[in-house]
Amino acid sequence: MPHTPPYFAVIFVSRRTEVDGGYSTMADRMVELGSGMPGFLGIDSVRDASGLGITVSYWQDEASIAAWRAHGEHRVAQDLGMRQWYAHYDVHVAKVERSYSGPRE
Amino acid sequence: MPHTPPYFAVIFVSRRTEVDGGYSTMADRMVELGSGMPGFLGIDSVRDASGLGITVSYWQDEASIAAWRAHGEHRVAQDLGMRQWYAHYDVHVAKVERSYSGPRE
Repeated sequence: MPHTPPYFAVIFVSRRTEVDGGYSTMADRMVELGSGMPGFLGIDSVRDASGLGITVSYWQDEASIAAWRAHGEHRVAQDLGMRQWYAHYDVHVAKVERSYSGPRE
Repeated sequence: MPHTPPYFAVIFVSRRTEVDGGYSTMADRMVELGSGMPGFLGIDSVRDASGLGITVSYWQDEASIAAWRAHGEHRVAQDLGMRQWYAHYDVHVAKVERSYSGPRE
């Protein structure tokens, strides 16, 4: 079951370059580090074989998102992502107003 | 570049069963049909080899989402999805407050 609204979602849609350079290690580290941040509620992440990925992280409030975005080690990862790992990305920061799960049994 | 906020995102996180039964044909049809609905802004969709998928559709307003959810052919697809195609799904309906793209050049 999703969390109780309102909460926030950061939708990160990205297309990878073919540059590796430690990407997986860094991606795992960011999940580990982000998961320990105050206000972190959860994460869903998928990348297909073509290199297209969607990661949605869920947060209690905007302040939690801002703190994670400004985290030193995350800043380093963002910079490397911008310079070598991502051909393109879109970020959508959104307030979740309702949520539900299925299948209903 | 993402759309100009505010707009809405429907985040659909799903795990497929191993039942096929016309899933791909229906999924393609739903993208075709949904894309033609009033207020549709775009869609990002990824599924990995394990069967985990995230689809985010973007909409102008809540009324557009409600109309799509109630669409007859979509209702049939939702029902089949609930009964055979999805082992689990979470839906988060959210209002996008800001968005940006990269890498900045």
